[in-house]
Amino acid sequence: MKSNVSEPWAELASLNVAIVGLGLMGGSLAMALRGATGSLIGIERVAASRADALKMGIVDEAFARLADVLAAVDLVVLAIPVESIVSGIRALPAIRASGCMVFDLGSTKGQIGRAMEELPAQFAAIGGHPMCGRESSGLPAATADLFLEQTFILCRNARTTPDVEAVALALVAQVGARPLFMEAADHDRLVAASSHLPYTVASLLMERAWEEASADPRLWQVSSSGLRDTTRLAGSNPEMMLEIMLTNQGPILAQLEAYGQDLETMLDALRRQDREALRAMLEQANQRRQAYLQAKYGPD
Amino acid sequence: MKSNVSEPWAELASLNVAIVGLGLMGGSLAMALRGATGSLIGIERVAASRADALKMGIVDEAFARLADVLAAVDLVVLAIPVESIVSGIRALPAIRASGCMVFDLGSTKGQIGRAMEELPAQFAAIGGHPMCGRESSGLPAATADLFLEQTFILCRNARTTPDVEAVALALVAQVGARPLFMEAADHDRLVAASSHLPYTVASLLMERAWEEASADPRLWQVSSSGLRDTTRLAGSNPEMMLEIMLTNQGPILAQLEAYGQDLETMLDALRRQDREALRAMLEQANQRRQAYLQAKYGPD
Repeated sequence: MKSNVSEPWAELASLNVAIVGLGLMGGSLAMALRGATGSLIGIERVAASRADALKMGIVDEAFARLADVLAAVDLVVLAIPVESIVSGIRALPAIRASGCMVFDLGSTKGQIGRAMEELPAQFAAIGGHPMCGRESSGLPAATADLFLEQTFILCRNARTTPDVEAVALALVAQVGARPLFMEAADHDRLVAASSHLPYTVASLLMERAWEEASADPRLWQVSSSGLRDTTRLAGSNPEMMLEIMLTNQGPILAQLEAYGQDLETMLDALRRQDREALRAMLEQANQRRQAYLQAKYGPD
Repeated sequence: MKSNVSEPWAELASLNVAIVGLGLMGGSLAMALRGATGSLIGIERVAASRADALKMGIVDEAFARLADVLAAVDLVVLAIPVESIVSGIRALPAIRASGCMVFDLGSTKGQIGRAMEELPAQFAAIGGHPMCGRESSGLPAATADLFLEQTFILCRNARTTPDVEAVALALVAQVGARPLFMEAADHDRLVAASSHLPYTVASLLMERAWEEASADPRLWQVSSSGLRDTTRLAGSNPEMMLEIMLTNQGPILAQLEAYGQDLETMLDALRRQDREALRAMLEQANQRRQAYLQAKYGPD
């Protein structure tokens, strides 16, 4: 299935690859992998998306169900919401008794890793998560450069072989991303703070603004780019986010609870008109924002 | 001081205008008004900013204190933090017994309006607030098109005469903004929801991410544009925001408390793994985000 060569394309060139889910992530992956694999098959239950993918020429063939084609596939990449990935992994042994390589782009990694570990030994599996979400979703939003220069997290588990790891690294290299190996539990804790909490906060903020605008529609006129940017994540695919919240409940609860305590501290300082306490909080947040931009994006 | 002509420039062309504060707002206003007023004087306590403003040619003259020049000024525009605007208004009668026109760009309007109403009758005053903040501050961030196409709120008070209202409207027209008259209390309530709550939420989010990153610096690698956008407002000038929070305490407390309750509702649904309740909240926030974008920015 692979040879001992070091070029990424050599790892992929001989593989028949199936991407399950041709939404923003799967569609973008298909575009970014185009021509680099032996064959590229799209699995998508929405007929119109299958037709679009074929018309756009981003897959060689498109099927409604993985079972229709799995016998001919070397690598399955699951690019669907997290709970569907878990049930998809569990369905694999029944439709592909001889095993294959399995990779996924799911947004939480703990439950997926455990499902991969329950696969029979003829399967080789590794988890992945490209850190490049955007609030638009679906195939029309897909773009070949979605992963370019972005961090692509890889999570090993008991079913991870050197072969599947090399293929995953080749795929990450092919799409122009930067691999970062991480324990699934660490991933889930970190994305709860960096992504799931911001999403929840944005959704709550959208609700609050809407309530006020319902009472006084001039709110939209008064609003500026600040409201637009802080609520951007509320536009994320709600079904995808729901599955993220349910499969990462513990770390997200911990973040929301700590956030709620910070909010109480701020509320208390404002109630007391405690100028020095408020100043310290706002200045610290401002300095940390600058330090974060520096750490993440470098000097200006 | 004015004639019954309808062109904006005619209202401004004969006036000696002093802008107090050459930061982002005052500096941008000077740039946008350049050439449209009889004279344009900058009042700025930072010597380097005075020198920069003169070098950039955006003011005719620059002074450290308003008292140095007020006798020759027809219109004073206060473009400094809210509490400084209030104390600046209170200082006017002592340095300009004969009165003048007063306008301001302060971010909250209640306390400023009350200070204007305490001015002697020879002063004519009206409040203003251009809805175009950005997280960068200071003269280097100033730009002549800051106000272009933006909403510029105007708040009348007991000291507002037809003359000063006409001059304010001329100024708004000159900088390319859209005037919107509003009661000061309505303004303060609406910006608490559309601007001050998002700012507070962004600052709390920055703190939370920083705490997690202190424990595990990989957080920055894992973070994506979502964290960057949701925390953008935390980069706002903290002293300006502190004065906003202290002068708009009531409406901001109301928003923070309602937000805290919404957070508790979300937390509770997540603790119970209540799929339907969570789905309803996330879908509603998603739909409202789309409807808000439509209402504010029109079709795509």
